[in-house]
Amino acid sequence: MALFEQMRQKPFFILGPCVMENQELLYTVADKVAEIGAKYPQIQVIFKSSFDKANRTSIHSYRGPGIEKGMEMLQNIKDKFNLPVTTDIHEPYQAAIAAQVVDILQIPAFLCRQTDLLVAAAVTGKIVNVKKAQFLSGQDMFYPAQKVVEAGNNQVILTERGNMYGYNNLAVDFRNIYDMKAFGYPVCMDCTHSVQRPGGAGGKTGGDRTFVPMMALAAKAFGADGYFMEAHPDPDNALSDGPNMVKLHELEGVIRSLIN
Amino acid sequence: MALFEQMRQKPFFILGPCVMENQELLYTVADKVAEIGAKYPQIQVIFKSSFDKANRTSIHSYRGPGIEKGMEMLQNIKDKFNLPVTTDIHEPYQAAIAAQVVDILQIPAFLCRQTDLLVAAAVTGKIVNVKKAQFLSGQDMFYPAQKVVEAGNNQVILTERGNMYGYNNLAVDFRNIYDMKAFGYPVCMDCTHSVQRPGGAGGKTGGDRTFVPMMALAAKAFGADGYFMEAHPDPDNALSDGPNMVKLHELEGVIRSLIN
Amino acid sequence: MALFEQMRQKPFFILGPCVMENQELLYTVADKVAEIGAKYPQIQVIFKSSFDKANRTSIHSYRGPGIEKGMEMLQNIKDKFNLPVTTDIHEPYQAAIAAQVVDILQIPAFLCRQTDLLVAAAVTGKIVNVKKAQFLSGQDMFYPAQKVVEAGNNQVILTERGNMYGYNNLAVDFRNIYDMKAFGYPVCMDCTHSVQRPGGAGGKTGGDRTFVPMMALAAKAFGADGYFMEAHPDPDNALSDGPNMVKLHELEGVIRSLIN
Amino acid sequence: MALFEQMRQKPFFILGPCVMENQELLYTVADKVAEIGAKYPQIQVIFKSSFDKANRTSIHSYRGPGIEKGMEMLQNIKDKFNLPVTTDIHEPYQAAIAAQVVDILQIPAFLCRQTDLLVAAAVTGKIVNVKKAQFLSGQDMFYPAQKVVEAGNNQVILTERGNMYGYNNLAVDFRNIYDMKAFGYPVCMDCTHSVQRPGGAGGKTGGDRTFVPMMALAAKAFGADGYFMEAHPDPDNALSDGPNMVKLHELEGVIRSLIN
Repeated sequence: MALFEQMRQKPFFILGPCVMENQELLYTVADKVAEIGAKYPQIQVIFKSSFDKANRTSIHSYRGPGIEKGMEMLQNIKDKFNLPVTTDIHEPYQAAIAAQVVDILQIPAFLCRQTDLLVAAAVTGKIVNVKKAQFLSGQDMFYPAQKVVEAGNNQVILTERGNMYGYNNLAVDFRNIYDMKAFGYPVCMDCTHSVQRPGGAGGKTGGDRTFVPMMALAAKAFGADGYFMEAHPDPDNALSDGPNMVKLHELEGVIRSLIN
Repeated sequence: MALFEQMRQKPFFILGPCVMENQELLYTVADKVAEIGAKYPQIQVIFKSSFDKANRTSIHSYRGPGIEKGMEMLQNIKDKFNLPVTTDIHEPYQAAIAAQVVDILQIPAFLCRQTDLLVAAAVTGKIVNVKKAQFLSGQDMFYPAQKVVEAGNNQVILTERGNMYGYNNLAVDFRNIYDMKAFGYPVCMDCTHSVQRPGGAGGKTGGDRTFVPMMALAAKAFGADGYFMEAHPDPDNALSDGPNMVKLHELEGVIRSLIN
Repeated sequence: MALFEQMRQKPFFILGPCVMENQELLYTVADKVAEIGAKYPQIQVIFKSSFDKANRTSIHSYRGPGIEKGMEMLQNIKDKFNLPVTTDIHEPYQAAIAAQVVDILQIPAFLCRQTDLLVAAAVTGKIVNVKKAQFLSGQDMFYPAQKVVEAGNNQVILTERGNMYGYNNLAVDFRNIYDMKAFGYPVCMDCTHSVQRPGGAGGKTGGDRTFVPMMALAAKAFGADGYFMEAHPDPDNALSDGPNMVKLHELEGVIRSLIN
Repeated sequence: MALFEQMRQKPFFILGPCVMENQELLYTVADKVAEIGAKYPQIQVIFKSSFDKANRTSIHSYRGPGIEKGMEMLQNIKDKFNLPVTTDIHEPYQAAIAAQVVDILQIPAFLCRQTDLLVAAAVTGKIVNVKKAQFLSGQDMFYPAQKVVEAGNNQVILTERGNMYGYNNLAVDFRNIYDMKAFGYPVCMDCTHSVQRPGGAGGKTGGDRTFVPMMALAAKAFGADGYFMEAHPDPDNALSDGPNMVKLHELEGVIRSLIN
C-alpha cells in the first residue's frame, strides 16, 4: 500500500536526528527507528534528517552537509534499512533533487506561505508535509494546503509546531490540530520543535525535552494522526536543537505511551 | 554623497506601490515621490515596488511581473526620475540580478533568518534592508544584521513592521525600534504593513490605513530614522495590500507631519 | 479522611452549573454528580456553583441569587446529597460567610493577586482554590499560593484556565500545569472556562464546548490532579457560560475517558 | 469650570508617586505638580497617589497607609496646594469614603470588569477613570464604561496601560487609544505602568523608565487626551514601582515635550 494511505490508516512517526551530522549518526538512529517499526506493525515509521539548517540564529552555527551529500546519506538509509525517508527543503530548485530520494518533502514553518516552494514540492508528486508557521492559526493553513492541491497534488500533511507567545517563547494551541483535521488531511504534531524557546538562549535556540512526551499525548487527545520527534543518542552534544531532542534510548517508551 | 550616508543623516522615506501592477502606475507614483523629494531637500526619498509577491495568502492572487520585467520597469524609473530604488527578493539567486538596478535590497520579514538570502544580498555590496520578522523581538534582530555584516557588508537597515498578536492581528511594540537602534544601523518603520490584519479578511490580508500616519509619528517618538509607506492612486482597487496603502494624494501630508 | 487528602490521592472533579439559576437546577445537576461519585469510588467529586457572577461583560447580564440565598441553596445540596461543595468569592468579607457552608473557597482568576481576598480566604481554614489569572504564567502562581500559605493555610489548589492569546481569545499553555505542580499543591484544569472566547460574541463571552474533553485529556498528559467542568442539562439556554458548559448527560462519558 | 470639562478641553496630566509612602513625599511631589500647573495654564494637572497597593506580587511588599490615613494625606494636599486629586479603589465600600476627598476615582486595570466596584464608583458622582485591563482590547472597554454610564454617571475617563505580551511583558497597542476615543470619553495614557515587566524581576515587577517619554509622545500621535505618569524624587529607592517611575526633576521636561 502506498505510504500516504499507510499514514491515513495508522499512527505515523517521523523520527530522526535534527541535522545530518554524519553518516554514522544516521545509521545509529535509523537502526533504532527500523527496530521500532518492526516491533510495532500497527504504526508507520519514517526517517527524517535535514541536509541544511538554512535559518539558524547565528551564521556560525553548523548547517549540514548540503543537498548533494545529504541525499546520498539518505539514500544509504533507504538502501540499508528499507525505511521511508523525508527531509525539508528551503528553495524551489531543491524540490526535484530531493524528490529523487525522499518519500515526503517537508516545507519549513517560516516558509509555509512561499508559493513557489509549495508548488515546486507539489509537482514532484511526493507527499508534501507543510509545517504550520509560528504566526498562523490552524484555520489559516487552508491556504498553504490549497496551494499544493491546486498544483495537482492531494497528498498533503499538515504539521503543528506551536505559535509564538510573546518573545522567545512558543505555546501550543492544540485546538489548531482539530481545526486542521477539518480540511481532511492527516495532521502531525511536531513534539520537539514545539518545546523550543526560540532565541531564548543567547544566539541559539533553547528548549526543554521534558515536555515532549506530554506534547505528544496532548496532541493525541486533540486528534493528531502522527507525531514528529527528533531523536539523538547524545542530544546534549548534538550540533542542532539539542535541548529539545529526545534521547534515543527513550524514544521507544514515548512511542509506546501513544499507541496503547 | 553615497545613499547610505544620506540615510544616516536625513529622515528617509521608502515610498511606492506594493506591487508593480504596470509601468504606468509606477510612473504615476514615482512622479509624486520625485516631486516630494524635490520639495523637501531635508529628507531622502527612495522608490519601492515589488516584482513578485511570493507569499500571497491564496495561489490565485496577483503576484507581479517577475524579476526580469520588473527590473526593466524599475530601471525606467531610475532613468526617468533619477530616484534611488529598492525592491524585495525572495531567493538567493535574485540578489545579483536585482542588484544590477536597485540601490537597496529588501529582505522580507518571513525570510529574515534565511542565511543564504542574507549572504547573497550582502555580497552584492548594495544596502541591505532587513525587515524584522513578525515573530522576533528587536533584540533578536542582532543576528540577521550580523549575518550581513559577517558577509562583508556594513550597509544594513533594519525595519520594524509589527509582531503577531494572537491570530490574524499585528501589534507594534515600538520599544523594538529603540532596541534595534542600539545596534548602530538606521531603523525604518514600515507604516503600512504594520497596520495589516493578516489573513483577517477570508483568504486575503486586511488592514486599516487610518492608522498609518499615527504609526509613523509614534515611530518617530521612539527614534525611527526612516519610514516605509506604500502608496497608490486608488488603493481600493490595488492588486495587493489595498486596505493598508496610503492614498497617493495624501502622501505628502503624512510626510510633512513627520518633518516639522 | 479529610477532603484535601482525598484530593491529593484521587483524581478530583469539580462539577456543577456555572451560576445558581434556581434550586431546582442545582438539585438536577447535583443528583448526577452524586450518582457519578457513587459509581466511581476511585475519584472525588465536588459540587460547584456561583452565587454571583461579579464581572459579567454587560451590566444587564444575570448575576445570581447573591451570597445569602446562594449559601442556603448550597447548604441544601450538602444536606440532600452529602457532597462537598465549593463556590467563588469576590470580596474579602464574603470569605467567612461562604466558609460556613463550603469546603473549598475558589478565588477568581482576575482576582488572584488581590492580597486581602487571598488572606481572607486563607484564614477560614477551608481549602483555597486559586485560579491562575489569564495574564500570568504557571511560575508566577508561586506568589498567590504563597500569600495563602503565609496566612497560615497549606490547603492550596491551583487551577489552570488558559492565557489571553491576542484579543478575545484564550490559549492553554499546558506547560503551566507542570510548572505549577512543582510547587507541591494539587493542580486542577478548568476545562470549560479555558475554551471561552472572552468578549468574542458581542457583549457576552463565547466559547466552544467541543474542546472540553480534549482539554481534559491534554491536562492529564501534563499531570493534572483534578478537573473543573461546568455542566448544565440545557446549556444553550443557560443564564451564563452556555457555549462552553458540558451537557449534563455527556458529563459521565467525559469523566470516564479520564479515569481509564 | 468643572474638572471634567477642563479635562475635555485641555491636555491633562495625572501625576504623583505610586504609593503614599509618607506625607513628606506627597508634599515634595505635589509641590512640583502645582508648580507645573501654574507654569503651564494650557494643561490641567491632577495629583495621584495610592493608599493601598492591593495586588502586590508578594505578600511582603509595602502596601500603603490604608484608606483612612491615606484620605487624610490627600486632603492635606488639596488644602495646601489646591490641586485636584485622585486615587484608586479596590473594593466597593471604599468608593464613598474616597469620594469625600478625591475628584476622580480610579478603577484598577485587573478590576475593570467588577460590576459592583464600577457601580459604587459611579454613584458617588465623581469622575470615574477606568483603566483598561491588560487582557482587553480598546473595543472591549465599551462595556466597563457602559456600566458606569448606566449607573447614572457620564463622567468617564478610559486609560490605556498596555496588554500582556507573552509572560512577564506588556506591549502597548496604541490603536486601542483610537478605538476608545470612538466612545466619546477622554482617553488617558498611563505612561509608567505600560513600561512595566510584570513579575519580570523575581517576586516583584520590573520596568524601564527610559521608554516613558516615548510612550507619551506615541500616545499623543494616536489621539490621547491626557497622560498618567508616576514620579518620585528618588525612584530607585521608592517602595513600589521604582523601575518605571519618572524622576521628579525630569517630569517637567517630559510634559513640555508633549505640549509644544
